[in-house]
Amino acid sequence: MVSVSDAEAIILNLVQPLNSQRDTEIVDLLAADHRILATPVTSPLDFPHWDNSAMDGYAVRYKDVQDSNAEQPAILEIVEEIPAGYQPKSTIQPGQAARIFTGAVMPTGADTVIMQERTRQEANHVLILAAPTKSQEFVRQKASFYQADTQLLPAGIQLKAQEIAVLAAAQCPRLNVYRRPRVAIFSTGDELVTLEKPLQPGQIVDSNQYALATLVRESGAEPLLLGIVKDDPVALQETMNYAINNADIVISSGGVSVGDYDYVDQILESLKAKIHIRTVEMRPGKPLTVATFPPQIVGVQSFTPVQQPTLYFGLPGNPAAVLVTFWRFVQPAIRKLSGLAEGWEPAFLKVRSHDELRSDGKRETYIWGRLHLVDGVYEFHKAGGSHSSGNLINLAQTNALAVLPIGTTLISPQQEVQVLQVSNS
Amino acid sequence: MVSVSDAEAIILNLVQPLNSQRDTEIVDLLAADHRILATPVTSPLDFPHWDNSAMDGYAVRYKDVQDSNAEQPAILEIVEEIPAGYQPKSTIQPGQAARIFTGAVMPTGADTVIMQERTRQEANHVLILAAPTKSQEFVRQKASFYQADTQLLPAGIQLKAQEIAVLAAAQCPRLNVYRRPRVAIFSTGDELVTLEKPLQPGQIVDSNQYALATLVRESGAEPLLLGIVKDDPVALQETMNYAINNADIVISSGGVSVGDYDYVDQILESLKAKIHIRTVEMRPGKPLTVATFPPQIVGVQSFTPVQQPTLYFGLPGNPAAVLVTFWRFVQPAIRKLSGLAEGWEPAFLKVRSHDELRSDGKRETYIWGRLHLVDGVYEFHKAGGSHSSGNLINLAQTNALAVLPIGTTLISPQQEVQVLQVSNS
Ligand code: NWS
Ligand code: NWS
Repeated sequence: MVSVSDAEAIILNLVQPLNSQRDTEIVDLLAADHRILATPVTSPLDFPHWDNSAMDGYAVRYKDVQDSNAEQPAILEIVEEIPAGYQPKSTIQPGQAARIFTGAVMPTGADTVIMQERTRQEANHVLILAAPTKSQEFVRQKASFYQADTQLLPAGIQLKAQEIAVLAAAQCPRLNVYRRPRVAIFSTGDELVTLEKPLQPGQIVDSNQYALATLVRESGAEPLLLGIVKDDPVALQETMNYAINNADIVISSGGVSVGDYDYVDQILESLKAKIHIRTVEMRPGKPLTVATFPPQIVGVQSFTPVQQPTLYFGLPGNPAAVLVTFWRFVQPAIRKLSGLAEGWEPAFLKVRSHDELRSDGKRETYIWGRLHLVDGVYEFHKAGGSHSSGNLINLAQTNALAVLPIGTTLISPQQEVQVLQVSNS
Repeated sequence: MVSVSDAEAIILNLVQPLNSQRDTEIVDLLAADHRILATPVTSPLDFPHWDNSAMDGYAVRYKDVQDSNAEQPAILEIVEEIPAGYQPKSTIQPGQAARIFTGAVMPTGADTVIMQERTRQEANHVLILAAPTKSQEFVRQKASFYQADTQLLPAGIQLKAQEIAVLAAAQCPRLNVYRRPRVAIFSTGDELVTLEKPLQPGQIVDSNQYALATLVRESGAEPLLLGIVKDDPVALQETMNYAINNADIVISSGGVSVGDYDYVDQILESLKAKIHIRTVEMRPGKPLTVATFPPQIVGVQSFTPVQQPTLYFGLPGNPAAVLVTFWRFVQPAIRKLSGLAEGWEPAFLKVRSHDELRSDGKRETYIWGRLHLVDGVYEFHKAGGSHSSGNLINLAQTNALAVLPIGTTLISPQQEVQVLQVSNS
């Protein structure tokens, strides 16, 4: 039995991130959402590219207008109109101005923009009704946001709308991102069936496969669904063999407890896996097997030329235990593997509990529920119904897990508790 | 000029959620991640389906073992072995037990399970070394989690792994979900180009289109990219016409300010749109046009048989203004439209600011940066670099916006500030 924090450390130490040379692929910018950048991006350009106007108005020489006001307005000759997107032709001389629009390039000679609300145009002259507060007002200087050759984005970040916009501005139609980790998934148990109706006596639906497929995809990896494997050592060994040669991570559920038909550990040993963890001091999730296979231990062709050790998670079969152990251990492992430079560790918030929370204090206890925002502050609400690890139904709409450490038997309403946020809706 | 909170109320009042009869589609369970359920799901089955064992051990009659202990163990005859997945054949009589495994159906006659660690098996008998703490111990009673015909999931929730697992358990291979809202996007401006290199003098990349396409997709809707429209009333009117007849929401960027080439409002009026908002007391994002078109105002065939009024957002062109106004107004509108029953309002957290934040106090000011978890508590860190609304570069890696209300000119370090969380990474 290892503690939860030791288990976390063991697991995350076993994970080697994807290789930034080998484990990458090129994607189109518009398909890059949520992908993880494998190469830093440097700007080929200054931002802004040119001195340009931040307002619709008039480009002027500061000296000509610094004392201007509504009573004694400077009167300037308009020598050009510069819409956005065009190159100015004139050089502004003393006593001159150019009509200019937001985003348009500043003409040489001018150094300041007067917004049009502070002017009056009369034929081809403009009256400046208020002096600018300073020279350069409403001019966005070339390179004032970023200079060419500055790094815009580091490697290892996950791309979202704002990064994709930056990459567009930097003229990157295609990007080098980490490939998605491949995660093989199978369920074990003679009682399991897919979605058949009606269920024969003793049968249940293999809901774990659906949960894990979705969790893996939500974590940014590609699930490889290997289906249901009977409680039969030969079938199990065959599936495991295939899985470890075709995935970065393998996840099975069921078959890790003490029953006569719990073959997972036995077959891992026969395949010469190194077993790092067998049980963890947590509830749910006590029987949790974590193992590694050295690269290419068995015959089948591996899916990448140079394979990393495959990480194996034998999750307990109970549906709540699958979700909790995935969120607590597997998701951080996938995220570290996927090339994320930071933010893959599970993040715990300290919040107020709305409800009483109980544990026997003997194992670290995970209680599912929801975070609600109350006046800008998160509050944890325990899910109603049975918190048996065999339950699944009341895990619907869970967005957080409250964590009661060993020795804590009670959290009273309004007391503070640590929670792991597992979803943002 | 309307206040930000008035603008929010006006916009969200204009949004009619998709219709739960008409605006739905059927998807496979494994493709349902992030979709929004349109019909409540009721369980056809009790959960658990049968009384079953929560442990590997022995199914017994409580009366036979209630006084058992290691010194004077009850000795029971094993009449059957019941693996998970099979229907028991025997009825347990006084003095008898069945070998049973986790998840296996309880045999009639037995009411309690003794975990195997508390037993010793000798040939076809089992010795019970410790009495159960109560009758029914380690038995999961039929229907104890949920009864058949109970509602498992309400309509209007977004499906994630845990709901998909519940739906699998309830044997739902296909689901009725809301169709994705369709959002047309275009950019206006003669200065805009796609990703061409090199840029001609005065040109800039249309980064807003990339930002908006990704934001729309992240919000669960389907972007319809209509490209760049020149500052030309005819082209603009044509695109707008097409957009409002082919989308639930239309978003343009640029062309809403006071410049001579800012045609958006003028064309909205010519198309008989109702303009609800023209400017909002915020920074960035002041020039923000919000309008509605009655259903099918113009000729083209509409994409749904009965069309709702189309909602039009004319966002300002400045890149930071596009992101901020999207997060503040457009995303909640899309989420409300999409059928979400709750949680579509923007959620503000009260957190400590790590940095000094400043505003002129005249408009509600949005400052971009990151929330960091420090000892379980969120802290806001302002992005470095220019907070000009023409900047985009330092919006990369933003996950939150700090909000300074009108009248607040300074938030000192360690002072509390309201933030809008815009991303969970
Ligand atoms: N004597 C003894 N007995 C023990 C323990 C012990 O200490 N001593 N520990 C406990 C704990 S303690 Mo816990 O995490 O702290 O709650 S799990 C746990 C459990 C782990 O057993 P395992 O061998 O992994 O799983 P099995 O295959 O038995 O299934 C387990 C359950 O889950 C269901 N199930 C399986 N697969 C699927 C699927 N794909 N979809 C949907 N449901 C599925 C399956 O029907 C069954 O009801 O054994 C218990 N028994
Ligand atoms: N006299 C006067 N002048 C004013 C204001 C005023 O009060 N009085 N208000 C301000 C404010 S104040 Mo602010 O939100 O509080 O910061 S926006 C705002 C602005 C809105 O003007 P608009 O007409 O919407 O946009 P335009 O087309 O002019 O572009 C704006 C900028 O964005 C760039 N841009 C456009 N499209 C894209 C794209 N697709 N991708 C990348 N960049 C793009 C484009 O190059 C240009 O630099 O006008 C200002 N001018």
